[in-house]
Amino acid sequence: MALSQQRQEKNKQNFFLENELTPQYAVANEVMQLFAPSNNLSIESKMGVQTDTLVDDFLSAINTNSDINFNDLVETFADSQVPINPTNFDSYLDYLANNVINHSIHTSSPRFIGHMTSALPCFVRPIAKLMTAMNQNVVKIETAKAFSPYERQALAMMHRLIYNFPNEFYSEHIQNSQSTLGILVSGGTAANIIALWCARNKSLGAKNSFAGVEKEGLAAALDYYGYQGAVVIGSELMHYSFDKAADLLGIGTHSLIKIPTNANNQVDLPALRQAVADCHAKNLHIIAIAGVAGTTDSGNIDSLLDIAEIAQAANVHFHVDAAWGGPLIFSEQHRQKLVGIECADSVTIDGHKQLYLPMGIGMVFMREPYLASSIEKNASYTMRKGSFDLGKRALEGSRAGMALFLHAGLHLIGLKGYEFLIDAGIEKTQYMAAQITTMSEFELLSQPDINLLLYRYIPESLRELAVKKQLTETDNQQINIFNERLQKTQRQAGRTFISRTTKTITYLEKETSVTALRAVIANPLTTKDDIDAVLNDQIQIALDLSISDSLEPTQSRA
Amino acid sequence: MALSQQRQEKNKQNFFLENELTPQYAVANEVMQLFAPSNNLSIESKMGVQTDTLVDDFLSAINTNSDINFNDLVETFADSQVPINPTNFDSYLDYLANNVINHSIHTSSPRFIGHMTSALPCFVRPIAKLMTAMNQNVVKIETAKAFSPYERQALAMMHRLIYNFPNEFYSEHIQNSQSTLGILVSGGTAANIIALWCARNKSLGAKNSFAGVEKEGLAAALDYYGYQGAVVIGSELMHYSFDKAADLLGIGTHSLIKIPTNANNQVDLPALRQAVADCHAKNLHIIAIAGVAGTTDSGNIDSLLDIAEIAQAANVHFHVDAAWGGPLIFSEQHRQKLVGIECADSVTIDGHKQLYLPMGIGMVFMREPYLASSIEKNASYTMRKGSFDLGKRALEGSRAGMALFLHAGLHLIGLKGYEFLIDAGIEKTQYMAAQITTMSEFELLSQPDINLLLYRYIPESLRELAVKKQLTETDNQQINIFNERLQKTQRQAGRTFISRTTKTITYLEKETSVTALRAVIANPLTTKDDIDAVLNDQIQIALDLSISDSLEPTQSRA
Repeated sequence: MALSQQRQEKNKQNFFLENELTPQYAVANEVMQLFAPSNNLSIESKMGVQTDTLVDDFLSAINTNSDINFNDLVETFADSQVPINPTNFDSYLDYLANNVINHSIHTSSPRFIGHMTSALPCFVRPIAKLMTAMNQNVVKIETAKAFSPYERQALAMMHRLIYNFPNEFYSEHIQNSQSTLGILVSGGTAANIIALWCARNKSLGAKNSFAGVEKEGLAAALDYYGYQGAVVIGSELMHYSFDKAADLLGIGTHSLIKIPTNANNQVDLPALRQAVADCHAKNLHIIAIAGVAGTTDSGNIDSLLDIAEIAQAANVHFHVDAAWGGPLIFSEQHRQKLVGIECADSVTIDGHKQLYLPMGIGMVFMREPYLASSIEKNASYTMRKGSFDLGKRALEGSRAGMALFLHAGLHLIGLKGYEFLIDAGIEKTQYMAAQITTMSEFELLSQPDINLLLYRYIPESLRELAVKKQLTETDNQQINIFNERLQKTQRQAGRTFISRTTKTITYLEKETSVTALRAVIANPLTTKDDIDAVLNDQIQIALDLSISDSLEPTQSRA
Repeated sequence: MALSQQRQEKNKQNFFLENELTPQYAVANEVMQLFAPSNNLSIESKMGVQTDTLVDDFLSAINTNSDINFNDLVETFADSQVPINPTNFDSYLDYLANNVINHSIHTSSPRFIGHMTSALPCFVRPIAKLMTAMNQNVVKIETAKAFSPYERQALAMMHRLIYNFPNEFYSEHIQNSQSTLGILVSGGTAANIIALWCARNKSLGAKNSFAGVEKEGLAAALDYYGYQGAVVIGSELMHYSFDKAADLLGIGTHSLIKIPTNANNQVDLPALRQAVADCHAKNLHIIAIAGVAGTTDSGNIDSLLDIAEIAQAANVHFHVDAAWGGPLIFSEQHRQKLVGIECADSVTIDGHKQLYLPMGIGMVFMREPYLASSIEKNASYTMRKGSFDLGKRALEGSRAGMALFLHAGLHLIGLKGYEFLIDAGIEKTQYMAAQITTMSEFELLSQPDINLLLYRYIPESLRELAVKKQLTETDNQQINIFNERLQKTQRQAGRTFISRTTKTITYLEKETSVTALRAVIANPLTTKDDIDAVLNDQIQIALDLSISDSLEPTQSRA
């Protein structure tokens, strides 16, 4: 303490001695107080107490959001001038509470069951503070000494759950600077991009006089290898990050071949085989075949083992996007749904989804520890060849020590803890599906594979036809419009939340596009009562909408 | 509280009533306690107190790191098995303290002046906890209602500092869902990638029968537009993220044309003009010309206005990588060094560098609000066309509400506060340069433009020759080896820290590669005394090395 105070005095002497009466001095002094460790104990702990109150209020909310009109909210963020002088923390926190926190989404509410966010375990909050205080930069060991091997360990633990190679494999690779078992990234999108980037660079690599696609580019690579083009193949339900990857990597989104899915939303295997054969016939290079383990819409899992066989027969990189479904590997009861994932050349899993960690923890795992060398970059001031610096094989450069959350989660929740969370989510989803089946107001659109559920509300006048499967296309359109209104009204009211999507179903032997209500049941705090409450809220909203319609027909229904 | 307890009871009834005696029940109960809001007050506040102690210790450190041998450290992270059962928080925190925190880098130490990390203002720590508690997902308004316009506001404030368009411009675009003034990303690398991605997609866009590079890919685009290839041009000192971008975007790193720099590390303008002319002659499409505002090695700033003119004359996208130097716009005294940045089509700035925010805040700004529509992607369940969802124009998908730090920084530090920080860093760097000039042990390798400094240690026996500029190539090699050893020994000792890089200098009319010591003076806590301490530490280490060499010559010097 004494030392710190001495230091601060010194600081002033160094820079402000001659101008103590100027406004510049006042600003400098104010700013230095924010940085000075000696003052932190009082200033920072006061800030901590104030924000903790806001945190506690936010986390105890049952409602999903405020009912402020979005356009009104937007108007409060119209100023584009940076304030001239430092704002006082108290008044900024007041501003935050009233304008930002009050109108944020209670993603931890047990009745917010429409997106892939959830309540988080309480340890993530003190750990967030610790991580930010440490401010390591994991791009290189010079700014992340212990964090580099620590991150590698956490990723190896996940790798082992997926691939389960023998002890010797992990002893050899876990801390070998030339091996990459996984890369921690900001999210599943970056993870999928990296996987396809590695697949592209490896399959169109250096050979004889050709320096490889990495150096010479895609047009030269296709030319050298004699291909007419390059494609990525996967289910039509692939995440939109594959479109981003196809665009970024230069193959173009039209070269992302989207295979139709069966009634259970899984990629159609004969169609996939045909697509592979077509590409061969057309002399198109297949960069990768992607399987989905947990579609974003409805959580379905492709037949990974079959896709693995097809990829292997074609000698093509097999990637599995298990951003959502990956953590089923923790469950004895459900992990067989992922069978075949151990054959994948690369796997994406998101920590901020079903590992219950904060936003910003994507992961991509590689079966073959040297695959990621195909994207390695070096620089003279860092990430030199052979170094331990994690940044040498990454899409990102500087990045935070988010591994702290992952490593902590794996230890503080553990294998059995995650198993419980996964099993409980699926059990509750089955409960919700069963409830929907018994309620005449709703129609279940497909049996859930895991913990995502699609259903829709059927207006009373159409229920009989719906049960008899005699809805016409016009009926379905009317139902679609009603469900969209229902979802928007529910969202605006802010008591409960369900998202919506569009699903293609076969109805009267014809493909019909249906607006679906989409539940995601991952929050451990969500009880069966909460599920009932969400469904009852929808019934009440639908009733109110129907009454107001009958009183005053809207234009869209005219 | 009562409600929460009731809820927790309900939870147990829902799932564990019949198995209270099983080990599964114990695990489930333990995990549920981590999630349950009713218990948070006690469990979480206890965790908070414990981690706060670690945080305070960590932040008050003056040493830069522990002197543990890296190989010994690595061995403590050899286990690859996920623990079966939940670990107790206390024991995990003990483990963290001993194995991870103790051996992490004190990036906030006033004597850690070798990388682009610094002490941070104290408000980032409570805010980190708040952000993690809120766990917004800024990909869409359904998971980030207030955060979407709030982030847009913070980005517009930065945009205005760069471009300073009239009020009407900001009124029109700040909250217009079809406009993108900036994109918040994980770091400068992603920011640079996005800028070049936009530039590529816009310049090779849809035309007549051609659907654009985004959809049809790079080979088809070059073919349609009749180009022999596509390139990006910039200084040889461009950040390595440009290599990543060139690789990712499919043009290949060989198509990243690196122009030599002058003695002040700025891109050589005649050579740049020549390169542009050469590309035209060879029918190569120039995707972008990049200027650097703050080279990673030595902080120099290209002549942005001249590059802007060259780019404009060639009708080419002009990107400025101001990841480091961008915040000079806050300084009246120094912002003229950035003149020309307002002509850039896109600008990268890192918040976790000179805005003193935590890791993970990259930004890319666009002069033209519709530029980013060239990378827009949509999906049926989110980011629908015309929506306010920020994820529709982004490299990443799900991401955290990091805007909280940016917005808070702009308000709690303010324009004048940032000006003070920038000015103070540059002033201290000038002090360090002056000190080095007066010390016979060191040679200044170039006058600092801003707050990065390159110098080297000269062993005693070579000082006279160095002063007379009569060092031979062999002498320089010997000095290089010595400086590398010096830097590594200093890093290992952990009292102070300076990084190292390689710089090409002209010596005796010949280009020579020189190992340089690299200082980055950004930490507001760094005093002139600290700078002296770092230099004196190096002199002492060098002396010790020289003595041990004279006693026992090493093989490398034999």
